[in-house]
Amino acid sequence: MDHIYKHIELTGSSTESSDQAIQNAIAKAATSVKYMQWFNVVDTRGNIEEGVVKYWQVTIKVGFRLKD
Amino acid sequence: MDHIYKHIELTGSSTESSDQAIQNAIAKAATSVKYMQWFNVVDTRGNIEEGVVKYWQVTIKVGFRLKD
Amino acid sequence: MDHIYKHIELTGSSTESSDQAIQNAIAKAATSVKYMQWFNVVDTRGNIEEGVVKYWQVTIKVGFRLKD
Amino acid sequence: MDHIYKHIELTGSSTESSDQAIQNAIAKAATSVKYMQWFNVVDTRGNIEEGVVKYWQVTIKVGFRLKD
Amino acid sequence: MDHIYKHIELTGSSTESSDQAIQNAIAKAATSVKYMQWFNVVDTRGNIEEGVVKYWQVTIKVGFRLKD
Amino acid sequence: MDHIYKHIELTGSSTESSDQAIQNAIAKAATSVKYMQWFNVVDTRGNIEEGVVKYWQVTIKVGFRLKD
Amino acid sequence: MDHIYKHIELTGSSTESSDQAIQNAIAKAATSVKYMQWFNVVDTRGNIEEGVVKYWQVTIKVGFRLKD
Amino acid sequence: MDHIYKHIELTGSSTESSDQAIQNAIAKAATSVKYMQWFNVVDTRGNIEEGVVKYWQVTIKVGFRLKD
Amino acid sequence: MDHIYKHIELTGSSTESSDQAIQNAIAKAATSVKYMQWFNVVDTRGNIEEGVVKYWQVTIKVGFRLKD
Amino acid sequence: MDHIYKHIELTGSSTESSDQAIQNAIAKAATSVKYMQWFNVVDTRGNIEEGVVKYWQVTIKVGFRLKD
Amino acid sequence: MDHIYKHIELTGSSTESSDQAIQNAIAKAATSVKYMQWFNVVDTRGNIEEGVVKYWQVTIKVGFRLKD
Amino acid sequence: MDHIYKHIELTGSSTESSDQAIQNAIAKAATSVKYMQWFNVVDTRGNIEEGVVKYWQVTIKVGFRLKD
Repeated sequence: MDHIYKHIELTGSSTESSDQAIQNAIAKAATSVKYMQWFNVVDTRGNIEEGVVKYWQVTIKVGFRLKD
Repeated sequence: MDHIYKHIELTGSSTESSDQAIQNAIAKAATSVKYMQWFNVVDTRGNIEEGVVKYWQVTIKVGFRLKD
Repeated sequence: MDHIYKHIELTGSSTESSDQAIQNAIAKAATSVKYMQWFNVVDTRGNIEEGVVKYWQVTIKVGFRLKD
Repeated sequence: MDHIYKHIELTGSSTESSDQAIQNAIAKAATSVKYMQWFNVVDTRGNIEEGVVKYWQVTIKVGFRLKD
Repeated sequence: MDHIYKHIELTGSSTESSDQAIQNAIAKAATSVKYMQWFNVVDTRGNIEEGVVKYWQVTIKVGFRLKD
Repeated sequence: MDHIYKHIELTGSSTESSDQAIQNAIAKAATSVKYMQWFNVVDTRGNIEEGVVKYWQVTIKVGFRLKD
Repeated sequence: MDHIYKHIELTGSSTESSDQAIQNAIAKAATSVKYMQWFNVVDTRGNIEEGVVKYWQVTIKVGFRLKD
Repeated sequence: MDHIYKHIELTGSSTESSDQAIQNAIAKAATSVKYMQWFNVVDTRGNIEEGVVKYWQVTIKVGFRLKD
Repeated sequence: MDHIYKHIELTGSSTESSDQAIQNAIAKAATSVKYMQWFNVVDTRGNIEEGVVKYWQVTIKVGFRLKD
Repeated sequence: MDHIYKHIELTGSSTESSDQAIQNAIAKAATSVKYMQWFNVVDTRGNIEEGVVKYWQVTIKVGFRLKD
Repeated sequence: MDHIYKHIELTGSSTESSDQAIQNAIAKAATSVKYMQWFNVVDTRGNIEEGVVKYWQVTIKVGFRLKD
Repeated sequence: MDHIYKHIELTGSSTESSDQAIQNAIAKAATSVKYMQWFNVVDTRGNIEEGVVKYWQVTIKVGFRLKD
């Protein structure tokens, strides 16, 4: 069968790590989007305060299957 | 008058051809989105099984006019 | 706290200027989207009629914060 | 001998397929340009009407040899 | 009917604004090219003299329909 | 289990269509590579002779799983 | 004679327009950099407050000649 | 002496982290490739199951020196 | 008020992780640059020795505010 | 005064060097185009025969001023 | 007949020139790869020692025909 | 030990060759920057006068190690 997928673009942030910023974005999206299947990283950024990274901010595209 | 358009990104799939994968994505979107006006191809991929393309998967951006 | 942002892609148009096309896209989006915080320009185009620009068309990504 | 080539950029359209849009652009160019030797695809787009692709529009670069 | 379009790349300049540099390029092209229909911005540059922008220079692609 | 994949880049050609050029590249690779799983299109080109496309040439990346 | 140029990357901001954001960046740089000769736009962004653009933010590269 | 290097492209996966996906790809390659000297990240992706990242998938290019 | 920002490009390295390579670059820059506000990742690389990553090397752009 | 420039894209070839391929393209263009002012390299390629480069092929954009 | 080509990516180095770095990569590849037909430049780099280029390093893709 | 590197972007020019334009940029930078280790080419351009290249202009990024 021919599935169709939609992509949304999200930016997650985390004070811990770049990987955790991705996990946070996906966890948040999971509260309203079903059938998420993959992500890919679009951009990795962050905020600096007093010479250290305060927030990791990672922009991802998330693909999810549309109901048939 | 100054129209405003929104873009959504979809991946359609087809066992037949890359063009048909695009048609399938648009046909699916048409069940919930009105005023679609154009698309452009972002990425063309596919799944391989036993040495042949099993699914063509084409990612497109679709632009549609927002109601004034 | 770790905020999450979503991006949407819009094309605004204007007969006046490229900056105004951006303003029009954002003003339209503001009627349905809350907490918009930034935009970035993806593409600047336009329609030509009788040797002058008739419509400026600017495609932007808009980022807005998702409710916690 | 050291040949020199020039490139032109064309957009062909077709109601049938993306491949045919390319063929149409090349056929049209052939009425005025000689010694065309290759093309490469720059962009694939299309117009949508009532939920189906009405026009396939493919932008190509065409290279042709300049007369020595 | 299946129209074919050709693209040309131009750089317009203006002492006033980046939008005016585009208008100047299109106005100049209009003296020799018919059926121009759209443009898109490729690059925005400028010359600086004594700490201010003296010339805005915008490179655009212009698409025009070839006679059938 | 954590699979590892390798990518190879191929250009297939066909006198018939761009899709068939992809199929030809994959069929050829299948004679020496096992466990091919996906491809993505890198570039679409072609040769022109007497105003028509003689060869469609599509460059793809093919991913295959390395034996554990 | 063979001049050598150095490039710096700046982001200017303005409440008025995208062109003015560029002018502001160059005016600021002119207080410490001599022999600036050109700029090119790298990115155009902005901050949104209450549905309108509050700050235009344009990132440019500026080239200046090194003293011989 | 003038060394020559070859590049291969690999996708590693890991349930733990994006860095570990890279380590897994390199460890696997080390079983058959000698003289690997550097890598660079081409793409970072992942699979999502039930609202969390199940597999991190990182595509890298690996450069290794060819024997003289 | 209209702030102006300057960007510098740095490569940090770390034997531990890609995130730590970023932290190291920022910590080093903080010894001579004030008002750093954000970074974005340009490139992620590394050195390989005996089949494992020895150094993570991440190139970032760092933006800092110029004194008014 | 506000000059307008047009760009053309050429591929020059040479059996000697990549620089000479550029010179050949410009020398050929000079026989029919006036007021050429700059070029930039788009792509550097070549043909290989019996393990050596037989032709260097460099694609350039050439900008020339349109008569006022 | 429909030929299939494979691409490999190599970095050649030379103390003499960027062109010679390409020649060295191709000469080395020719000792193990047959039917090489073209290359294109992916990246040009180099090592600096005491203020001069010590090694030119050019990364190329090389295409060769697979035996039918 | 974890070294940190900074990148600067320069454009060198030469009447002789594209390689010499790079050498000139590096020689100039060497009068004020220590510990330069590598460069990579960003852009190759040139000025044309009377149908020949008058100046080769090559933009490079240069990386140098920051003192520990």
